[in-house]
Amino acid sequence: MDTHLHHEEHLQSSDFLRDVVIGMSDGLTVPFALAAGLSGAVDSTHLIVIAGLAEIAAGSIAMGLGGYLAGKTEVDHYHSELKREYDEVERLPHKEKEEVKEFFAGLGLSAEVQQQAVEEMTRDKKKWVDFMMKYELGLDKPDPQRAKKSAFNIGLSYVVGGLVPLMPYFFTENALEGLKYSAIITIVCLFIFGYLKSKFTGVNPWGGAIRVTLIGAVAAGCAFGVARLIQSA
Amino acid sequence: MDTHLHHEEHLQSSDFLRDVVIGMSDGLTVPFALAAGLSGAVDSTHLIVIAGLAEIAAGSIAMGLGGYLAGKTEVDHYHSELKREYDEVERLPHKEKEEVKEFFAGLGLSAEVQQQAVEEMTRDKKKWVDFMMKYELGLDKPDPQRAKKSAFNIGLSYVVGGLVPLMPYFFTENALEGLKYSAIITIVCLFIFGYLKSKFTGVNPWGGAIRVTLIGAVAAGCAFGVARLIQSA
Repeated sequence: MDTHLHHEEHLQSSDFLRDVVIGMSDGLTVPFALAAGLSGAVDSTHLIVIAGLAEIAAGSIAMGLGGYLAGKTEVDHYHSELKREYDEVERLPHKEKEEVKEFFAGLGLSAEVQQQAVEEMTRDKKKWVDFMMKYELGLDKPDPQRAKKSAFNIGLSYVVGGLVPLMPYFFTENALEGLKYSAIITIVCLFIFGYLKSKFTGVNPWGGAIRVTLIGAVAAGCAFGVARLIQSA
Repeated sequence: MDTHLHHEEHLQSSDFLRDVVIGMSDGLTVPFALAAGLSGAVDSTHLIVIAGLAEIAAGSIAMGLGGYLAGKTEVDHYHSELKREYDEVERLPHKEKEEVKEFFAGLGLSAEVQQQAVEEMTRDKKKWVDFMMKYELGLDKPDPQRAKKSAFNIGLSYVVGGLVPLMPYFFTENALEGLKYSAIITIVCLFIFGYLKSKFTGVNPWGGAIRVTLIGAVAAGCAFGVARLIQSA
């Protein structure tokens, strides 16, 4: 029981971290690149602040609300498939038994052990259906509360991440000066964020830090180039 | 062989559609909302076009390059875990056998069948390790070519999606007039896109169409509100 609880807690904190990573990853990158792009086309920071905050509002809602509705859809989908599996186990038990057998055959078990496993497995209808859901359809039981929490965490992380590159533009009138400080702060944050994200996902942290920083820098550079090109056209 | 090939093709077309859905979903929503937001703060469409194109450049690179590097990381992660499992099977066969047994116990099989299944399963080291990868760690063998294709498909879909709401601003000088046509075209496109996306993922298509449209409209409305608020402050 104790290890089970510990495992659950561990999973919940991973879910939270995963949400923060998703939201902050885009939040640091896209508003940074947009502000950099506009810095190549306008002189005043007033407009960059407006565009940046509008982007943060749009992006956080698209990601947060999008995540919430995707989560709800997943719950609905799980329950409609669950109903269908119970139905099929009732109406076509032979076909469903055959599918369980195929699973064990795929693991390389002998015909004899396959047969025994199928018989034991299909005795308890609930276990049988849970097995079909997980291993035939690859569906894990979704937590109905997750969608709401996840939406909130992703949306908020996007806002926090997005305010980092935008902050310097609040304090200066000159767009290129804003860009200079924004680039320094954001690249440092992207590097730290990439390092921690990679540590958490179990990948080489320095490689991850460089990768994340590179994406942000390339996106900002291209946005700057695109905006300059149109402005001078 | 034939059914196998068919199955592979089916999976590949799903992967492609999944990428298009991911890219276009954000591409239709965020540039639409950003342009709507700026329409609430500036009069000229020139700046909205610059900001919109800068956002499309930033967003498509962040999503495309981000997807590419995430795919590469997944491949690296799979291979480092694969190496570790081969190592553990070699050094700690008893512990690893115990884990296979726990899996079968979790399915509700009797101690006798568990034991037989473990013995048969662990005879072939490759099958054993593949089993551990898939069912202990939940890792599927990633396709190394996927990352590149996926990045390209997601990035391009974001550009295509993003040009839809931006298009009307190319043809008018007045921002609010641009917004009017942008809103009409984008909401129609979001509705069609939401319908097709839901058909493809097997969810109620009308519900899905309404959901996707709602996210876009709410994001655009909030961005408009935020920009208006700052402009008038």
